[in-house]
Amino acid sequence: MHEITLRTSDRRQMVDITSEVQELIASRGIGTGSVLLFVPHTTAGITVNENWDADVRHDILWALEQMVPESAVYRHSEGNSRAHIQSLLTGHSLTLPITEGKVCLGRWQGIFCCEYDGPRRRRVLVQMHISSPDIVD
Amino acid sequence: MHEITLRTSDRRQMVDITSEVQELIASRGIGTGSVLLFVPHTTAGITVNENWDADVRHDILWALEQMVPESAVYRHSEGNSRAHIQSLLTGHSLTLPITEGKVCLGRWQGIFCCEYDGPRRRRVLVQMHISSPDIVD
Amino acid sequence: MHEITLRTSDRRQMVDITSEVQELIASRGIGTGSVLLFVPHTTAGITVNENWDADVRHDILWALEQMVPESAVYRHSEGNSRAHIQSLLTGHSLTLPITEGKVCLGRWQGIFCCEYDGPRRRRVLVQMHISSPDIVD
Repeated sequence: MHEITLRTSDRRQMVDITSEVQELIASRGIGTGSVLLFVPHTTAGITVNENWDADVRHDILWALEQMVPESAVYRHSEGNSRAHIQSLLTGHSLTLPITEGKVCLGRWQGIFCCEYDGPRRRRVLVQMHISSPDIVD
Repeated sequence: MHEITLRTSDRRQMVDITSEVQELIASRGIGTGSVLLFVPHTTAGITVNENWDADVRHDILWALEQMVPESAVYRHSEGNSRAHIQSLLTGHSLTLPITEGKVCLGRWQGIFCCEYDGPRRRRVLVQMHISSPDIVD
Repeated sequence: MHEITLRTSDRRQMVDITSEVQELIASRGIGTGSVLLFVPHTTAGITVNENWDADVRHDILWALEQMVPESAVYRHSEGNSRAHIQSLLTGHSLTLPITEGKVCLGRWQGIFCCEYDGPRRRRVLVQMHISSPDIVD
């Protein structure tokens, strides 16, 4: 299994890992298939969203904070329940199709590892599946 | 790769694409396997939920609007941050098992493409994987 | 297809099914591959999150209730729209990588079936894919 490692710099952050994913796919010469991205953390997540205007990422992180505010009265003594909940809303596993040697994203989409309790070192596990006659595309 | 195209008619809408997915699986004669559905948009999503009472879809869209209201003060100048955030909450990638030639849904489940910034033309990419001796079921 | 069945005891509950998933993988002798978990219900979901401190699960369920309160005015006459919406936020399908004969979770992660309208009998469908020369890991 491959992995992408990163170090976040902020408490809340969306880190664009699109080029790292594309490079892994290219390095293995995969034409058609799929890629499974998995975040083995409980206060981070993974998603696709707009990668053009940084204000979108700002608004996403701000809105998640309105939905799950730090100021709420949580039981968990470590004080990061907010981050656990935001990671549930985002999700930890993402499967994307690969065609013509590239992960198949929309024009405005990038792949983001979402940090909700940083700064920390984070890992994204990457498992690639190449096509075979068994994949009908 | 196959794709399902649709044209939404409302700003917010859940479009049932279950029969289109079933038809694609049937047309390829897949018995056992899985299907990956991916929405290449940043203001739409994909999910399964109840397909019996249309009031459930109304309530889902209404609740997402309460959680991420249009009236909040977002930075993104295009004015559709709400839709980007609702798409993150819904997700863009959905993998479903196929058994006995059909996508394996619960009795009350349908597959929905969720429009959060319509009306627009939308695409759902469909990648099917048929079983092989390598799939243990 | 395999399935894990469980009976929930509360209205809202996160049931740890990690050991059941691990046992299924071990029983089939899968070394490298992936596992697809699918919940065929519209008022339940599946996720990974912290499995160490039960207070995290309490806080997750409590926060989802703040975001999607039972007291809101929903149209759906069965009175469980809240549960449908919480299941959308959680998701119904989860794909996890398998390496060295085990589902590849982070140190603090467990796999949870999330009940939002219990107590009920629930099923989690399990489809395992073993590696082949076609899987590049």
